[in-house]
Amino acid sequence: MVNVAVLGYGTVGSGIVEVIKENQDMVNQKAAAEIDVKYILDLRDFPGDKYEHLVVHDYEQILSDDSVDIICEAMGGVEPAYTFSKNALLKGKSVCTSNKELVAVHGPELLEIARQHNCSYLFEASVGGGIPIIRPINSSLTPEKIEAVTGILNGTTNYILTKMEKEGSDYEAVLKEAQEKGYAERNPEADIEGYDACRKIAILSSLAYGSTVNYEEVYTEGITKISTKDFKYMKELGATIKLLGMSKAEGGSCYAMVAPFVLFPSHPLYSVSDVFNGILVRGNMLGDTMYYGRGAGKLPTASAVVSDVIECARNIGRSVPCFWNPEKQALSDAADVKRRFFVRVSETDKAKIEDAFGSVEVIDAGLTDETGFITEVMCEKEYKEKAAQLTVVSMLRIEE
Amino acid sequence: MVNVAVLGYGTVGSGIVEVIKENQDMVNQKAAAEIDVKYILDLRDFPGDKYEHLVVHDYEQILSDDSVDIICEAMGGVEPAYTFSKNALLKGKSVCTSNKELVAVHGPELLEIARQHNCSYLFEASVGGGIPIIRPINSSLTPEKIEAVTGILNGTTNYILTKMEKEGSDYEAVLKEAQEKGYAERNPEADIEGYDACRKIAILSSLAYGSTVNYEEVYTEGITKISTKDFKYMKELGATIKLLGMSKAEGGSCYAMVAPFVLFPSHPLYSVSDVFNGILVRGNMLGDTMYYGRGAGKLPTASAVVSDVIECARNIGRSVPCFWNPEKQALSDAADVKRRFFVRVSETDKAKIEDAFGSVEVIDAGLTDETGFITEVMCEKEYKEKAAQLTVVSMLRIEE
Repeated sequence: MVNVAVLGYGTVGSGIVEVIKENQDMVNQKAAAEIDVKYILDLRDFPGDKYEHLVVHDYEQILSDDSVDIICEAMGGVEPAYTFSKNALLKGKSVCTSNKELVAVHGPELLEIARQHNCSYLFEASVGGGIPIIRPINSSLTPEKIEAVTGILNGTTNYILTKMEKEGSDYEAVLKEAQEKGYAERNPEADIEGYDACRKIAILSSLAYGSTVNYEEVYTEGITKISTKDFKYMKELGATIKLLGMSKAEGGSCYAMVAPFVLFPSHPLYSVSDVFNGILVRGNMLGDTMYYGRGAGKLPTASAVVSDVIECARNIGRSVPCFWNPEKQALSDAADVKRRFFVRVSETDKAKIEDAFGSVEVIDAGLTDETGFITEVMCEKEYKEKAAQLTVVSMLRIEE
Repeated sequence: MVNVAVLGYGTVGSGIVEVIKENQDMVNQKAAAEIDVKYILDLRDFPGDKYEHLVVHDYEQILSDDSVDIICEAMGGVEPAYTFSKNALLKGKSVCTSNKELVAVHGPELLEIARQHNCSYLFEASVGGGIPIIRPINSSLTPEKIEAVTGILNGTTNYILTKMEKEGSDYEAVLKEAQEKGYAERNPEADIEGYDACRKIAILSSLAYGSTVNYEEVYTEGITKISTKDFKYMKELGATIKLLGMSKAEGGSCYAMVAPFVLFPSHPLYSVSDVFNGILVRGNMLGDTMYYGRGAGKLPTASAVVSDVIECARNIGRSVPCFWNPEKQALSDAADVKRRFFVRVSETDKAKIEDAFGSVEVIDAGLTDETGFITEVMCEKEYKEKAAQLTVVSMLRIEE
């Protein structure tokens, strides 16, 4: 018997209990042990809930129960999740979490405590919801020198961008609809400003390259400036706009960023639509592999946490390996990366645009009071110098 | 120090040595041990080869060397690979392989021997080349009841179909070009007749549902009958044709088949082109996840074998769990599955076609001596009864 305690009985926490109970036979078989939910920690009571009798309010009761082997932390936020997780690991109880904020801030420290206490700190659900991505990096791409990670990491913004593209609707209207449907939070800032994707690319990059990418140093731009006009140009180009988290490690240096990008149909992430996520990982031997699925949602996220529970149960008394070293990964300036840019300017005189940018590919989207064009390949610094000569309405980077 | 012997110094075997040597620091770090290639078994000599000194001709030398922990079997075919693998496992040496023929025939038996001798039989490279798919099923989708597996599992046929679609070329011409480029074998039967995909879907289905799907019982149809005319209709439809291996488990029964299918752009496998593979796995909690990458090739395949080597090295003295039971999975008749069909008939009189099929969607591809149409949803048995009333030129199933 392996006893589990679930911290936080909200969406993910109740999903964890549901996945374990619904698929109990499968879970037990794969864990080679009987997995039992012994406690649910929450400040609230849940009168009438099927698992009401498991609810406790005092974490000490869980921590001091030596029969509890595994903690599922589904509280979100840094505190008290950090203290609760740390105290569990110090007692040799493994912790499985969906909490990307906490992992991005304290991941390497908690991993080190887990190693010292022969237990595990696992966080498959913190990135890509139900998509297996952390474990493939840690256990499958092991012989690879990972060179790049590029992902559609936030379902809310991908839903909004897909709707804007398909229906020609305004950003504000689509956001409102997404909020009504529960796809976007009432306070949507973390999603639409790219903060959520930023934490996720920081976690993936830390695992991919082995040392800590500080999310606060990752250049981050959201989708709030994307307009229906941008999508008019995309239609002409046969392209689309996706919010990407990306990082590349080349020749000892590494850069990371989150921003909306123009993608063409030849890009493997082009067709990742709606609330789906997709993550592309490039290894030096393997080339590109991609992982795709539901990046959020109660049951997919809970399923990923339960897969971690099973991994912990298979490894009671030993620490599941994770190669994320607390040493800081120096980030180079993403402004040095060379790419093409999609630019909209107020100028309508092509000669003036070419004075600034040299040869460009003008796109006719039927807009008469501005010009949209694609530049040649250049670094961002060079782009900025050229763009300063014109009145830029908007700019999007192109990922090829 | 963990010593490895590589059996077969052909494309995959030499790739295994290359991946270990090129990425030695990464491999050692992830294995938490020094991984050394001690022997290469081949009938040939390799004068001038960098690793010539490791080549031996007698398997007994490897088998009787107690310092050899892990065998990489890259010989292909059932014998002597089967005997060599079995004898290694009986001595407690783990075996990692890319050999789908052997895994499809003797997988559950070799897994059982590995379990009894506290070592592992791993075969990540046997399906999907470098794409992590076996380990995600065994270690990540663990809480899921898997309901369906659908994959583009053969790079050669996907390359041929992509070329036919993009260039409007004949099947024969594209096959010849693929053979010249080394993408297709001189004897291409295993690929083009679907036999390769059949073994792969049998392996994936056995892992997904837990009991043995006998590849000989899987209905298998290749791509040799696909013509440029079929792609003319696809262009009108905005659809494409892919060779799919698929299996579905519903209500206790299970069916599996390999055949070319019509896919629309909304299907996640629609955009998997050229030599790439893509595998879609549906779980009852998680919904669809997809895995994409290079399905063949020296280094991607070798990388998958080396990831298995690392997994074995991390688990010396214990057997890595795999849930593939020797009990036979009963397969239900794929003819009972309901779907739409794309049909071409010699008849050009719509009334006659509707007499047989009822309401159909006729597709105008500019061909005057035949009619192409899409049926309503029906099972294959029903389709056959209706089709018997007409002169069918070709039929393709539609996967939605």
